[in-house]
Amino acid sequence: MSDLLKGIPVIDHHCHAIVDEKRQSDTEALLRVTSEAPVTYSAADLKERLAWQAVKVIVGRYTDGQCPSGESIPGLLAQQDYAAYCRTLFQDAGYQALLLDTGFAPESAASLKKIASLTGAQTYPIFRLEKVLEEEFERKKTFTDWWEAVISRVRTARESGYIGAKSIAAYRSGLQIHEVDIDTAKEAFQRWKHSGEKRLTEADLINFGVWHAAGDLARQALPLQFHTGYGDPDTDLRQGNPLLLRGFIEKYTPLGLSIVLLHCYPYHREAGYLASVYNHVFFDTSLIVPLGLSSARRVVAEALELAPYSRYLFASDAHTRPEMFALAAEVFRDAFEAHLNDTLVVRYTSREVREHWASLVCGMNARRLYLDEA
Amino acid sequence: MSDLLKGIPVIDHHCHAIVDEKRQSDTEALLRVTSEAPVTYSAADLKERLAWQAVKVIVGRYTDGQCPSGESIPGLLAQQDYAAYCRTLFQDAGYQALLLDTGFAPESAASLKKIASLTGAQTYPIFRLEKVLEEEFERKKTFTDWWEAVISRVRTARESGYIGAKSIAAYRSGLQIHEVDIDTAKEAFQRWKHSGEKRLTEADLINFGVWHAAGDLARQALPLQFHTGYGDPDTDLRQGNPLLLRGFIEKYTPLGLSIVLLHCYPYHREAGYLASVYNHVFFDTSLIVPLGLSSARRVVAEALELAPYSRYLFASDAHTRPEMFALAAEVFRDAFEAHLNDTLVVRYTSREVREHWASLVCGMNARRLYLDEA
Amino acid sequence: MSDLLKGIPVIDHHCHAIVDEKRQSDTEALLRVTSEAPVTYSAADLKERLAWQAVKVIVGRYTDGQCPSGESIPGLLAQQDYAAYCRTLFQDAGYQALLLDTGFAPESAASLKKIASLTGAQTYPIFRLEKVLEEEFERKKTFTDWWEAVISRVRTARESGYIGAKSIAAYRSGLQIHEVDIDTAKEAFQRWKHSGEKRLTEADLINFGVWHAAGDLARQALPLQFHTGYGDPDTDLRQGNPLLLRGFIEKYTPLGLSIVLLHCYPYHREAGYLASVYNHVFFDTSLIVPLGLSSARRVVAEALELAPYSRYLFASDAHTRPEMFALAAEVFRDAFEAHLNDTLVVRYTSREVREHWASLVCGMNARRLYLDEA
Repeated sequence: MSDLLKGIPVIDHHCHAIVDEKRQSDTEALLRVTSEAPVTYSAADLKERLAWQAVKVIVGRYTDGQCPSGESIPGLLAQQDYAAYCRTLFQDAGYQALLLDTGFAPESAASLKKIASLTGAQTYPIFRLEKVLEEEFERKKTFTDWWEAVISRVRTARESGYIGAKSIAAYRSGLQIHEVDIDTAKEAFQRWKHSGEKRLTEADLINFGVWHAAGDLARQALPLQFHTGYGDPDTDLRQGNPLLLRGFIEKYTPLGLSIVLLHCYPYHREAGYLASVYNHVFFDTSLIVPLGLSSARRVVAEALELAPYSRYLFASDAHTRPEMFALAAEVFRDAFEAHLNDTLVVRYTSREVREHWASLVCGMNARRLYLDEA
Repeated sequence: MSDLLKGIPVIDHHCHAIVDEKRQSDTEALLRVTSEAPVTYSAADLKERLAWQAVKVIVGRYTDGQCPSGESIPGLLAQQDYAAYCRTLFQDAGYQALLLDTGFAPESAASLKKIASLTGAQTYPIFRLEKVLEEEFERKKTFTDWWEAVISRVRTARESGYIGAKSIAAYRSGLQIHEVDIDTAKEAFQRWKHSGEKRLTEADLINFGVWHAAGDLARQALPLQFHTGYGDPDTDLRQGNPLLLRGFIEKYTPLGLSIVLLHCYPYHREAGYLASVYNHVFFDTSLIVPLGLSSARRVVAEALELAPYSRYLFASDAHTRPEMFALAAEVFRDAFEAHLNDTLVVRYTSREVREHWASLVCGMNARRLYLDEA
Repeated sequence: MSDLLKGIPVIDHHCHAIVDEKRQSDTEALLRVTSEAPVTYSAADLKERLAWQAVKVIVGRYTDGQCPSGESIPGLLAQQDYAAYCRTLFQDAGYQALLLDTGFAPESAASLKKIASLTGAQTYPIFRLEKVLEEEFERKKTFTDWWEAVISRVRTARESGYIGAKSIAAYRSGLQIHEVDIDTAKEAFQRWKHSGEKRLTEADLINFGVWHAAGDLARQALPLQFHTGYGDPDTDLRQGNPLLLRGFIEKYTPLGLSIVLLHCYPYHREAGYLASVYNHVFFDTSLIVPLGLSSARRVVAEALELAPYSRYLFASDAHTRPEMFALAAEVFRDAFEAHLNDTLVVRYTSREVREHWASLVCGMNARRLYLDEA
């Protein structure tokens, strides 16, 4: 296998914050980030997964060189200079930039500035739509005031430093995003107010928000990411099929909105299909690649059956622990390299073309999409 | 490829009865068990499948050592001492225990006691829920009497010797199992009585039965198996997606019910996802592994992308013919061994870990789940 | 890898017309046929796909022997004797017969007679149901006249030279084909007349047409093809799952209708399942094989997990450009050969059986199904 990816840095277009040094030896967190299971899920079962074995190997590689037992990990991690440890992990893995979704952040999360310093990678924030809907709900009494505050923040997202936006509609009401009229939205707002809940689950209001924010995102050239497919069990996986976005894609991509399908598994073939027939549709196979790592070669290959190489991006969806970032890049590099060395890919392409595709997927696509660079 | 599974016996947590010696040379049955097609399906087409070629190879291996033509099989089988033939097939394949669903049994089925004697494996019965619903329907006139009789049998299942229960709701009304109130159930019971049918297809009554039996199964630590995915065309495959069980899983697994997803194909990735995020969810890839045998390496690998090795079990779903049991174990061993020798699995695990996972999947998981053994 | 397919000609049971010499150097068309994307899709993105790289290699192989740049292709193609060029491509790829769906044909399409002359392959036409529904709608004022004209053409399809029929219901109203009564159909006909549209999108009328034409097709032994799965974005992929055809299959296959599922991806496992449990159900993996060519080995293997080899057929779904036919056959041969050389296939079969299966899939199945040959 040739080394097409060797030395090519990666841009991670979807990830979350790591913890700061206060939690540098938090081994329970290290176990928990190897899965999307909730905290109630059996730790004994988590240990019977390959991802847990793999993060132990990563820890051992960067501490005493041995593969550690679970019990020895807190001690090994506590001994580290956390800043040096993080920097080595991220730099060995080749991280050049991190596009962070701050809608989810662990306890003791490092700030974006601090993450840049810890990792040696540039950091950029993603605007989390539902979080803004909920924050302004806390502050505003009426629908009109609420929506005015929301849309004002949407319209100034680019100038506020955001390089993209994200919706988790799949977790709340499903991906069949559709237009909702203002009267229906107002009624949903009243129901939400009466419910006493802070968390937004009113489908009408989520659809209203996403549908009406989309145009303003397009005008600022801010891509809109959607959680799709694999995630924690708060999502109904049947409502996370990216094919459900068809109407939204057909409405907004002709207006210039770039839509980014995150995760996608087990619908990554469907996502690749969408990217192959609609302009401005991008996707990744984050989350499954580090967490279901024995799948990586197969999943990456399946994702790339139809999609142009200009539409698929590396991402980790890692958070909390630096080891998971290291693992995500390592496994992705192995899998994507294997795909580029597939018999049929090699048969019909030159090495130059394969190198070009490697550079697109590892970083160039993200630069063009989010950072407006050629 | 190392021999991680060599010498490890298997427990088959989902299978059915084999025939006794009266049908020992029934070659039509041998052909039919290579597929889930109904009896009306073309025999000529069945012969153009790999499973038929494979059972012929099995017969040849245990009779005259040649790969036989279809015509010579009845003669070869008739010559055998059936008890010796069965014992050799099951023991060579390493069967230690068989958990039998007696809800389906072929004509001239051997009894559990006789199967134990024929195969040298321990046998245990599974309680088939819909069969009990139908049997008591024949005996009882009113809803109240019927449900009392049913729930009484459910509550005494463990003491009656059952080690688990099974529902085929997927075949009758789909897997979106939900709560049904008693008045609705009573109306459904009346409709059933008026229909003159013995077969239960009233969705309300199936949902009522499964939903209300679940608590009593949990109290007896009896796992509840569900047919999901692949099966004969009596099932609408779209209603057999295990993701449809989400509400039922969220209701009953916190109460301690273990839920076992059988077959799963082509939804085995979805099943592995469920096992990876919910406690007490287990699954297998039975049926597809012997019947779609060229899929086995791929399907086993896909099933294990996300699931803990403590949640996946070997099963054959074989019935009628001993040859199908032999084939199921043979193909499963090949596929699971290949998975444990996958580049990434080997990269991040020790041989001890892989041996441990082999022992879990082949039998330990079934022992813990059904037989209350450590 | 042995050469089971070497020298075996192929019958392409689903394809469309190629252009005549007027468009022999149309390089924009060559780019566009490498994808199902609409004309509005970015040409730059199309060039970042393996299919474009592959057709360039094909052009180079049959012109100056070099792998050409996109810019040099018009010149290279313009220099060719188009008839000789076509004949060489089709004959090297082993095309013996082409079953052409004339419902879609490119501008400057060659006639069936001319295609036979250009390619050296026999050509046969497929009756496109929705096209007939629309053509007669232009000519007839009332529902009764319209349906009489339609059904008369259906009933004389075989004697008019057609060897099969095709429906694109998946593109218009989805695959859940069901019975529609005549009054409902009449109302739909009136809505259509009032709409002023030429294109038929009335679900009731499409269902009425397919349902009521099926019996007459069966009586003429004309197989009915359905577009399923992958296609241009005019199709809602969720409505193209062949499992939706279950009711139609259960109604019409017992009456002798042969149903052929085209394309199928990403539902090719589901299609294989249907072929394995219902008589008279056939399928292919056309379109994905040439257009998503790095998928070919995986997709062909997945398609053949359950299906009898007597139910799966080669097809290209190619059109417009001869190069795409060359690529489709080349990639299919590689993938199917790889499947026949799979470890488990080889373990349980003789070379004779594998050769037989190769001959079925490459052409024998199509001969039996459409051409009434043994």
